[in-house]
Amino acid sequence: MTYFSNMSKIQFEGAKSTNPYAFKFYNPNEMIDGKTMEEYLRFGVAYWHTFTEDLSDPFGAGTAVRPWNHLQGLDLAKARVEAAFEFFEKLGVPYFCFHDIDIAPEGDSLQESNKNLDVIVSMIKDYMKDSKTKLLWNTVNNFSNPRFVHGAASSSNADVFAYAAAKVKKGLEVGKELGAENYVFWGGREGYETLLNTNMKLELDNLGRFFHLAVDYAKEIGFDAQFLIEPKPKEPTSHQYDFDVASGYAFLQHYGLEKQFKFNIEANHATLAGHTFEHELHYARIHGMLGSVDANQGHPLLGWDTDEFPTDLYATTLAMYEILKNGGLGSGGLNFDAKVRRGSFAPEDLFEAHIAGMDSFAIGLKVAKKLLDDKALENIIEDRYQSFTDGIGKQIVDGTVGLKELEEYALNLGEIKQTSGKLERIKSTINQYLLTAYAE
Amino acid sequence: MTYFSNMSKIQFEGAKSTNPYAFKFYNPNEMIDGKTMEEYLRFGVAYWHTFTEDLSDPFGAGTAVRPWNHLQGLDLAKARVEAAFEFFEKLGVPYFCFHDIDIAPEGDSLQESNKNLDVIVSMIKDYMKDSKTKLLWNTVNNFSNPRFVHGAASSSNADVFAYAAAKVKKGLEVGKELGAENYVFWGGREGYETLLNTNMKLELDNLGRFFHLAVDYAKEIGFDAQFLIEPKPKEPTSHQYDFDVASGYAFLQHYGLEKQFKFNIEANHATLAGHTFEHELHYARIHGMLGSVDANQGHPLLGWDTDEFPTDLYATTLAMYEILKNGGLGSGGLNFDAKVRRGSFAPEDLFEAHIAGMDSFAIGLKVAKKLLDDKALENIIEDRYQSFTDGIGKQIVDGTVGLKELEEYALNLGEIKQTSGKLERIKSTINQYLLTAYAE
Amino acid sequence: MTYFSNMSKIQFEGAKSTNPYAFKFYNPNEMIDGKTMEEYLRFGVAYWHTFTEDLSDPFGAGTAVRPWNHLQGLDLAKARVEAAFEFFEKLGVPYFCFHDIDIAPEGDSLQESNKNLDVIVSMIKDYMKDSKTKLLWNTVNNFSNPRFVHGAASSSNADVFAYAAAKVKKGLEVGKELGAENYVFWGGREGYETLLNTNMKLELDNLGRFFHLAVDYAKEIGFDAQFLIEPKPKEPTSHQYDFDVASGYAFLQHYGLEKQFKFNIEANHATLAGHTFEHELHYARIHGMLGSVDANQGHPLLGWDTDEFPTDLYATTLAMYEILKNGGLGSGGLNFDAKVRRGSFAPEDLFEAHIAGMDSFAIGLKVAKKLLDDKALENIIEDRYQSFTDGIGKQIVDGTVGLKELEEYALNLGEIKQTSGKLERIKSTINQYLLTAYAE
Amino acid sequence: MTYFSNMSKIQFEGAKSTNPYAFKFYNPNEMIDGKTMEEYLRFGVAYWHTFTEDLSDPFGAGTAVRPWNHLQGLDLAKARVEAAFEFFEKLGVPYFCFHDIDIAPEGDSLQESNKNLDVIVSMIKDYMKDSKTKLLWNTVNNFSNPRFVHGAASSSNADVFAYAAAKVKKGLEVGKELGAENYVFWGGREGYETLLNTNMKLELDNLGRFFHLAVDYAKEIGFDAQFLIEPKPKEPTSHQYDFDVASGYAFLQHYGLEKQFKFNIEANHATLAGHTFEHELHYARIHGMLGSVDANQGHPLLGWDTDEFPTDLYATTLAMYEILKNGGLGSGGLNFDAKVRRGSFAPEDLFEAHIAGMDSFAIGLKVAKKLLDDKALENIIEDRYQSFTDGIGKQIVDGTVGLKELEEYALNLGEIKQTSGKLERIKSTINQYLLTAYAE
Repeated sequence: MTYFSNMSKIQFEGAKSTNPYAFKFYNPNEMIDGKTMEEYLRFGVAYWHTFTEDLSDPFGAGTAVRPWNHLQGLDLAKARVEAAFEFFEKLGVPYFCFHDIDIAPEGDSLQESNKNLDVIVSMIKDYMKDSKTKLLWNTVNNFSNPRFVHGAASSSNADVFAYAAAKVKKGLEVGKELGAENYVFWGGREGYETLLNTNMKLELDNLGRFFHLAVDYAKEIGFDAQFLIEPKPKEPTSHQYDFDVASGYAFLQHYGLEKQFKFNIEANHATLAGHTFEHELHYARIHGMLGSVDANQGHPLLGWDTDEFPTDLYATTLAMYEILKNGGLGSGGLNFDAKVRRGSFAPEDLFEAHIAGMDSFAIGLKVAKKLLDDKALENIIEDRYQSFTDGIGKQIVDGTVGLKELEEYALNLGEIKQTSGKLERIKSTINQYLLTAYAE
Repeated sequence: MTYFSNMSKIQFEGAKSTNPYAFKFYNPNEMIDGKTMEEYLRFGVAYWHTFTEDLSDPFGAGTAVRPWNHLQGLDLAKARVEAAFEFFEKLGVPYFCFHDIDIAPEGDSLQESNKNLDVIVSMIKDYMKDSKTKLLWNTVNNFSNPRFVHGAASSSNADVFAYAAAKVKKGLEVGKELGAENYVFWGGREGYETLLNTNMKLELDNLGRFFHLAVDYAKEIGFDAQFLIEPKPKEPTSHQYDFDVASGYAFLQHYGLEKQFKFNIEANHATLAGHTFEHELHYARIHGMLGSVDANQGHPLLGWDTDEFPTDLYATTLAMYEILKNGGLGSGGLNFDAKVRRGSFAPEDLFEAHIAGMDSFAIGLKVAKKLLDDKALENIIEDRYQSFTDGIGKQIVDGTVGLKELEEYALNLGEIKQTSGKLERIKSTINQYLLTAYAE
Repeated sequence: MTYFSNMSKIQFEGAKSTNPYAFKFYNPNEMIDGKTMEEYLRFGVAYWHTFTEDLSDPFGAGTAVRPWNHLQGLDLAKARVEAAFEFFEKLGVPYFCFHDIDIAPEGDSLQESNKNLDVIVSMIKDYMKDSKTKLLWNTVNNFSNPRFVHGAASSSNADVFAYAAAKVKKGLEVGKELGAENYVFWGGREGYETLLNTNMKLELDNLGRFFHLAVDYAKEIGFDAQFLIEPKPKEPTSHQYDFDVASGYAFLQHYGLEKQFKFNIEANHATLAGHTFEHELHYARIHGMLGSVDANQGHPLLGWDTDEFPTDLYATTLAMYEILKNGGLGSGGLNFDAKVRRGSFAPEDLFEAHIAGMDSFAIGLKVAKKLLDDKALENIIEDRYQSFTDGIGKQIVDGTVGLKELEEYALNLGEIKQTSGKLERIKSTINQYLLTAYAE
Repeated sequence: MTYFSNMSKIQFEGAKSTNPYAFKFYNPNEMIDGKTMEEYLRFGVAYWHTFTEDLSDPFGAGTAVRPWNHLQGLDLAKARVEAAFEFFEKLGVPYFCFHDIDIAPEGDSLQESNKNLDVIVSMIKDYMKDSKTKLLWNTVNNFSNPRFVHGAASSSNADVFAYAAAKVKKGLEVGKELGAENYVFWGGREGYETLLNTNMKLELDNLGRFFHLAVDYAKEIGFDAQFLIEPKPKEPTSHQYDFDVASGYAFLQHYGLEKQFKFNIEANHATLAGHTFEHELHYARIHGMLGSVDANQGHPLLGWDTDEFPTDLYATTLAMYEILKNGGLGSGGLNFDAKVRRGSFAPEDLFEAHIAGMDSFAIGLKVAKKLLDDKALENIIEDRYQSFTDGIGKQIVDGTVGLKELEEYALNLGEIKQTSGKLERIKSTINQYLLTAYAE
């Protein structure tokens, strides 16, 4: 292996040796109720944030110090593959994820881009033979190139739709080639800057058509990955069609796609949409639509996608709670769609940050598991809604009463007995579970 | 009529005589393309904000100076009815809207509440005989009473569900009695304070059941008003199930209710959900779900429902644009779900504020009509999407190509020609239409 | 004692006996470095939220079940005093805080209001003799009464300024009478609804005059409490003059009051202003202006003041970190300006909520203390800024170089060596300190 | 002149000839009360957005089609200068503004950067001889280069402070050379990503020192431009020290700089800080600190700096109102710190967008002037505060009463007479002024 100057080996050891806290919690082989921690968490590394990202922002150039910074084109792409598999092995993660242009440079033509992809996909396939790390999902980037300025599947230009479709075709083939367990659609430009020049009806119809075309082709080539839509409310556009899980679900039902798709839910996208992370997970779960998770976090006071590594233990606990209630994520996983801060530009920060995220979700798993095992919250809920298990409540649920019967019942009610929701005590309880996670 | 000291007569004349701008724009009888301005705008007065509201806020007692402030109980309710119809006549509005407890005081029991309602409904019916003002919609308040602390149809307590159902039954009967053209559901407590003690699945299922019960009973009694859901994302709860139009549409489809309901869209609720007012109208329109409008506005820097009278001419223009594109609102209208500011406590402010709102929407109507007649925006849109009317674009829309054909097409494309979206020029054009509205 | 049906005794025992987590952390007598935990934390109960609040919100009536709900006027006020001191004793808190109208009903005139105050202040003084609980601060409510609709000290009406001034005079006398350690100004109506009708210059000048009058009178009567301004950006007004600590500090400097005042910083007000809680504490601290704390928390997704009990351990840790760095709060304390949720309406929730808050701050204290003792963050900071301790950095700090010398230095610099900010690792470290707080 | 293919000539004529609305309002030579419109508005073009910007965003590459896209290095810089002066002439703007790296490429060393600057500054100086367009202000970019990752004047690294200081020295010399009327400081990295590794006290002290050094050197070289601080609350950092005007004013007072600095106020920065544009202008004005304006607008629903061209006529009217009340901007002006949308990538969009902005401010000027001439708002304000012109109000303002006298006065007050704030009517009045602006 000649592409890469084995930076990560050194850096990771450095990161671990100087960090007395690294992997205090995450132990992939620890058994919990017959499954390993690794099987529960199914961590994935996001290729773009870890190997392609330069940490530039709208007000400044990239700061990332990376051993491959001097390379270009396919040489750069190859060095990153080498680094990636070394990184996966060091961290011990079972999965990774990528967009097409993360792994291979775009060429001057679609033909050339596809050729570049073939080279790198073949190299990745070779590396995967000797690695335990598998492809959680892949996707194609239909938003960065200037041709997608007015959208991809929802572009005002039919040529762009065709181009985007061709890229998805290749993406599905690549996914099949590398055994991707899911295939993701994030519509970064599928939305609008302004309604004043937008035909939203045609754009939504085209988006529906686009997804049907993808479903049909995947079937044709025998690619049986789970299809996932990743909602985000805005940024880069001022309104994106897959605003949140609920609006995505409205769309899927309207276009008859709700059986073919689930959702890939990102924490930071949830909060930008005005929801908690756990809300989006919960809503998807109870509708049978929870597919996979982009594990990151936003900054509560900032109005853009900060894509921070997840370290808020309340959020990781409540996320794992929903995932456990869902019986796991099926073919999905926890992809770290997170980037180190612009000030954390050293190579070892990539390790430190992933370790922080993995430990945080390991704690979340443990706390959530304990809450569930003890029925700490489930008993409260069962108790609160117990009036729907018999009497008038059961009749309501069974659909055996109408407004007339309900009115008659209500007219004969005395004072209705209410019970406190006890939120303050519940929050205190969560704190106690969190604080005792380590002690046990 | 002895209840009311004809305050409004005096105040209205005062408001008009000292305000040289009053009704410079709104002229109910002005003909535009064969319809009167009144027919286009279908204004309604919100009973709660105009006759019940005391202008208290979470940090202070009510400031509203009203001639009925010394009255109580049914006397108060009757004085308000008298004032209301005088107010409607003075303003010349064709519609009004109310919740049950706006018009009649709650009693110590459901029986007594219903009896109070009967008294006032009968009085209103009498007044309506001599008035041109009709009932745009009614609803029942299933959120203010402490019994709804944990929700109404989505309460954790089956007794509360029954009580709320009984109130809706009465509401439907009242609507029929007074010839309401629509019936509205706003779920102020249908949501949650925290997920930690919430069974969202049961709550949503119950909400679905509740709507079905209402639909069935309306059919049973021959009440053929349009049913409307009014979305709002939060406040008073931290998450409300009818978050926005899209999430409401997801819900209606999931529970098989999309044929029976449309949406009542409020400007301030749109912005609280992170959408523009016109977005919510547009989304509802293209899905055939635009029912009625709560005409108000929020404060872009404040995070709660300020319910201001609509005076932003950009917003009224874009709203009327969507409404005209919709072919009008059908049985819906423009209900001023708006309250005067706490500092605008004088009786004449009620007139001033409605006049401000009516003139603002009259301007919006004129500007929107002119934009449409000139195809100022429609031509831009037709032009932008013209590639979907023949060639590969038409094939995409017709569904005659798959990913393979699209890839082949894309591989043979040269550089894709893009055209500017020209937003800055379009905004300048809107300004010019606005500024010349008066001159013509 | 005949006013009060010793509710709290029962409820508190209930709260404690059924809550296995109560006071796992807070132990007032625990010694830490020569001071008790009680001395570090100086908890206060907010009279308004705990004894006056009915849990109404803008969309519904109060839900609070309180044993004094059947009483009125001075009887009600007296029952609350009795309950309050029982509550203080049960909880074991060293302080309480109040506005004038929390403790005594307003009369029909200022004379009568003052008379009512005298009765209750005298009763409170009696109770205080047998209680360890002292008055952390008092204030007067110059925002709830309709007379303050356009402000108090910043009212457009000189009579209102005079009225507000008279109330502050009484407030200062009450503070002296009861031995208040601080006196607080929160300007709920000192701001504007709109600039369009506002003379901000006159209003700010008047606010400056008002504070000088208060300072002068306190000196005159020998009341030596620390004066505190409590910033809040908005709500109820759309802009409040004491927007945040920085704008308050600008005001105080401009009007020559920076020696006489410090700040009372509320967590929820900080976040509404777009700052973290710790930012506001830190900014005040390094300017010598950190006086006292309103210990609560907001909801990161809601745009209004939710005044929740503080349970976020990250926030309590970082707050205590600032307080310890400040050498404590001097005469200030941690006042729970927090109310139970509307759904937590039972009397025992008052205990549960305070216990949750007290335990959360006790944990925060322990974690912050450990971080400081280990210099976990201080070493990082010392290291990062070490270049300012000698060479060019020292010259900069000492003021011995100008732009010319700096240019010369810069022209001869090679590549500047940067070091990573390591935020991800630091966050991971905080998590580890948090998780091990209990184990030790 | 060989650098530039006279693109703008063609494009501007195109923009004007196809846009029937261009310059309907802005007429530089129109006399208003003895001053030309140009003298009132003092428009400036922002070099960075118009000549350097490529319209990339965090999710995609630049889309801007510019005739100089094929050039590099100094050739590119020269082509831009040529284009710029042609652009200024076509538009007829009196001013422009730049950062050092907008006009000349950074070299591999500070020496080389300065040499590049010298070349371009000399070229600009030549062009200015034949142009009416002058330099409103210049500044240096101390935020984009990776060396500023942890700040510039507030960096944790003394070498970076020195480097930033050297750049400011050069910036002051360039400003003097080109006759800049102001010199601006925008501290894009002067803030923090996290408090956890930040010594805010040292950073603020250093920032204060830095400004003093700049003031001293400007005096030394006889550069008498007005120094301006441009507040922005966040982005790129999570907290910037010059958060808003008030916090900037607190800083300036604390470090004894309030006589040397005024503020450059940007509309979009105001709204990101939770203020209206007019609030920031008003606050600066009444403190004698209003220096210059960055004329743009944000998107009310987006949480980042969108830097849109100003087209909201409410905002331009209220901004011009403050500027007229200020007696103009002195040496300041209206700099279009605004960029065309990413979808408006054609060269002519640069003209269309500036025309939209210039016409919008011309309308704002006319409406504001009329409001002032008619005393439409001033009379309302005079009336509202009239109680402070005699009696107790005058005594308050004159400082001849203390709390005792005020109490005595208040005890003898009957009911206080309040008058309505009439906001709804005022808003309606503003609309009428706006709508009749064109007719007159």
